[in-house]
Amino acid sequence: MPPSFFLLTDFGLQDPYVGQMKAVLRSRVPQAEFLDLSHGVRPHNVLQAAFFLASSWPYLPPESIGLAVVDPGVGTERSILLGREGGKSVLAPDNGLLGLLLQSRPECLLWRMRAPTPVREISSTFHGRDVFAPLACELAQGIDPGKMGIEISFTECSQLPLTRPKREGNRVQTVVIHVDHFGNCVLNLPAAEWSQSIFAASHPCLHHPRQESVYPESTYARLEKNQLGILIGSQGYLELACNQDSCARKLGLDIGDECIFGL
Amino acid sequence: MPPSFFLLTDFGLQDPYVGQMKAVLRSRVPQAEFLDLSHGVRPHNVLQAAFFLASSWPYLPPESIGLAVVDPGVGTERSILLGREGGKSVLAPDNGLLGLLLQSRPECLLWRMRAPTPVREISSTFHGRDVFAPLACELAQGIDPGKMGIEISFTECSQLPLTRPKREGNRVQTVVIHVDHFGNCVLNLPAAEWSQSIFAASHPCLHHPRQESVYPESTYARLEKNQLGILIGSQGYLELACNQDSCARKLGLDIGDECIFGL
Amino acid sequence: MPPSFFLLTDFGLQDPYVGQMKAVLRSRVPQAEFLDLSHGVRPHNVLQAAFFLASSWPYLPPESIGLAVVDPGVGTERSILLGREGGKSVLAPDNGLLGLLLQSRPECLLWRMRAPTPVREISSTFHGRDVFAPLACELAQGIDPGKMGIEISFTECSQLPLTRPKREGNRVQTVVIHVDHFGNCVLNLPAAEWSQSIFAASHPCLHHPRQESVYPESTYARLEKNQLGILIGSQGYLELACNQDSCARKLGLDIGDECIFGL
Repeated sequence: MPPSFFLLTDFGLQDPYVGQMKAVLRSRVPQAEFLDLSHGVRPHNVLQAAFFLASSWPYLPPESIGLAVVDPGVGTERSILLGREGGKSVLAPDNGLLGLLLQSRPECLLWRMRAPTPVREISSTFHGRDVFAPLACELAQGIDPGKMGIEISFTECSQLPLTRPKREGNRVQTVVIHVDHFGNCVLNLPAAEWSQSIFAASHPCLHHPRQESVYPESTYARLEKNQLGILIGSQGYLELACNQDSCARKLGLDIGDECIFGL
Repeated sequence: MPPSFFLLTDFGLQDPYVGQMKAVLRSRVPQAEFLDLSHGVRPHNVLQAAFFLASSWPYLPPESIGLAVVDPGVGTERSILLGREGGKSVLAPDNGLLGLLLQSRPECLLWRMRAPTPVREISSTFHGRDVFAPLACELAQGIDPGKMGIEISFTECSQLPLTRPKREGNRVQTVVIHVDHFGNCVLNLPAAEWSQSIFAASHPCLHHPRQESVYPESTYARLEKNQLGILIGSQGYLELACNQDSCARKLGLDIGDECIFGL
Repeated sequence: MPPSFFLLTDFGLQDPYVGQMKAVLRSRVPQAEFLDLSHGVRPHNVLQAAFFLASSWPYLPPESIGLAVVDPGVGTERSILLGREGGKSVLAPDNGLLGLLLQSRPECLLWRMRAPTPVREISSTFHGRDVFAPLACELAQGIDPGKMGIEISFTECSQLPLTRPKREGNRVQTVVIHVDHFGNCVLNLPAAEWSQSIFAASHPCLHHPRQESVYPESTYARLEKNQLGILIGSQGYLELACNQDSCARKLGLDIGDECIFGL
C-alpha cells in the first residue's frame, strides 16, 4: 500500500505553497499519495482546523500520515507535536490544533518532536514545506516517533480556548464553530450529548440572534421553504440549516457568534 | 491499472467534505486514484453539474468510476442512479444530473440503485461520503450493477428542466448555461448543430441584453480589444467571449440569463 | 516510479478544465500522478505564473513533467516551449512564462515544439487539454525532445516584461510581484542579492505608498501587533508582512504596485 499523506492547512489554493509541500513529500517518498482535507481553513483559525481534523479522523485511511499546518507562531520556539491513534498519525504545531482530536480520542499517543537543527535551507516562515514535510517523510519511512521526540501527556501541550455550551433550565447558550459552504451553521453541541434533549423539546426556538422557531428535522430537504431547521449534521454536531438557502446569511451568523435556544 | 474515481460536486473546497469522501474511497480501495472534475458547481445547481459531466465525459479515462453529487434532495426518498457507457461509470442522484450525458450518449445503460439499508452510521445529510462512496467502492471491486439495483430506461428517471434554443427567422433565442472562470458565456447552442448557421451569418449581432455586433472567430486572441466574439468553445458549445476581458461582466450576464441574436 | 505531472494554470477550480487536462493525461498514461502547483494564477498573468514556476522549481520531484498553461495567445501562432533542467521538464507557451526560471537556471535547455498537425479534435481555445497534455504524455513515454521540436537558445524566445528594482543612494524603488493568501507582499528583491543591505540598514522605512517604519525580522510572529515587517520570504524574495494581518489590505497594495524604501 503506497504511503498516504493527508493535508490540512490555511494556505488556500492560490499560492504554490501546498504544491511545494507535496513536491517535497513526493521527492522523498516517490510513491506518496495525497489526500487534501482542506486548505481553506480561515487564516490562523486554529479552532476551525481542530474541528476539521477531529470530525474527519474516523474516515481517514489506516496508516495515513497527516500534516496539519495552521501555524501563526511559525518560526518561533513553539514545538511540533505528533499524535498517533488507530494506526493514523498527524503532525501539528503545539497550539491547540490537536485539541478536539485528543478530547474525542483520549487513547491518542502524543510526542513532542525535537526542534530541527537550524540549517540555511530551513525558512523561518514556511515550516510546512521545510520542517513538517521532512518529518512526515521520516514517519513514512517507518522511523520510530521515540527517536524523533519525547512522549508527552495531553496536559503538557497547549490547550484550545474552547467555549463549552451552557445550559440553564430550558435555555442553552451555544457558539457557531463552523459555517460551511452551504451556509449551514455548526454549533458546539456534539450530537451524541445534545440531540436527545433538542429533539425531545416540544417547541424549540431561537432567542438570539433573533426570535424564531426552529424545526428539528432529519435532513435539509424535509424543511419547508424559509423554515429554520436544526439537524444532526454529518460532522457529528448539531447544525442550524435552511432548505436550499444559506442559514448563515439569513441569520447573519458567522464563526464565533453566539446562538441562544429555548427548549 | 489502479481504480480511478472521478468526483463532481457542489461541496466547494473550504470544508473537509471532499476529503472525507476520498478518505472513505481510499480506506476501502487503497490503490484508488482521484480525478477532480470540479467541486465548484454552484450549490444545488443540477443543470451546471449536468453540463460539466457531459462535456467532460469523452476525456475521462476508461474504467473510471464517477461520483456526481449535487444533491439538494439528500436524505429524502430520491434514488441513486448508475450510468455506464464506453467502460466508464457514474453514480448520481435521480434529479436530472445525468440528463445531458444521456442525451448525448443514448447508448448509456442505466440502473436504479437499491436504497441502502439504513444504519446508524449513514448520515441523513452527507450521502456523498456515506452512500455514494461505498457504492463506488463496490463497483471498483467489480460487483455487477445488476446485483446493486435494477436496470431502467431513460424515460424512467427524472428529466432536466432544460430550455432549448428557439429560432424564428433570423432571430435566435438562447440561454447562458455556464459562465466560466474567464467570464466566457457558454450558450445552449451545441456547436455541432449551430456553428454553421452562426458562422455563415453576414452580420451576426446581439439584440439582448444589449445591441452589439458579435464577431465569429476561431480563438480569443484574434478578437480586437473591446470586441465581442462568438466562438466554438472547448466544451462543444458556442460561447460569447471578449479578448482578455470578462464577457459576463461586460454584458452583465449570468447563468440562466437570456441572449437573443440576429443572424 | 510512476510518471509525475505538475500543473500550473490560470484556469481556477470552478470549471472542469483542470480535470479534463488530467483526464487526458491519465487516459494516455494510466499510472500518472499529479501535483498541482496552482490553478489560481490571475487570468492571463504571465508574470505571476513565471514567479510561481521559478520559486517552486527547486522542490519539484526529479523526472517530473510540468504543464504551465497561462496562455492568453492560445490558438494563435505562438509556439510552445519545452524547458529541461536537472531531470525536470516543463512545457509552456512562448510568452515569457519560462523567463524567471531561465534567469535563475541558465543551464536550462530549451526546445521549440513543432506546431501540432491541425486536426478536428484540437480546439482553438483549450490547448492545455488538446495540445499540452498530449505533448506531456509523449515526454512521459520517453520520446526525445529533439524529435518533437528544435533546440533554441534563451535569446530566441519571448522575454518577460520584468521591472528590476532601482537603487539611488539610500532609496530603493521596488514592485510588488505577488500578494499571497495571507496578504504578504512579495517584492522584486531576490533575498540573495538584497537581504544584506536591507537587514544592515539602521532605520529602514517605507516612503511609498505611505510613510512608515518597517522592521526587519526573521518571522511573522516576532512582529508586534500593527508593526510592518520586512522578511526573507519562503519563496526566495523579500516580502512586506504584518503579524496575523493582511499587509496588502493594510497598505492598499496589489500586484504591480510600486513600493519605495529608504535604507
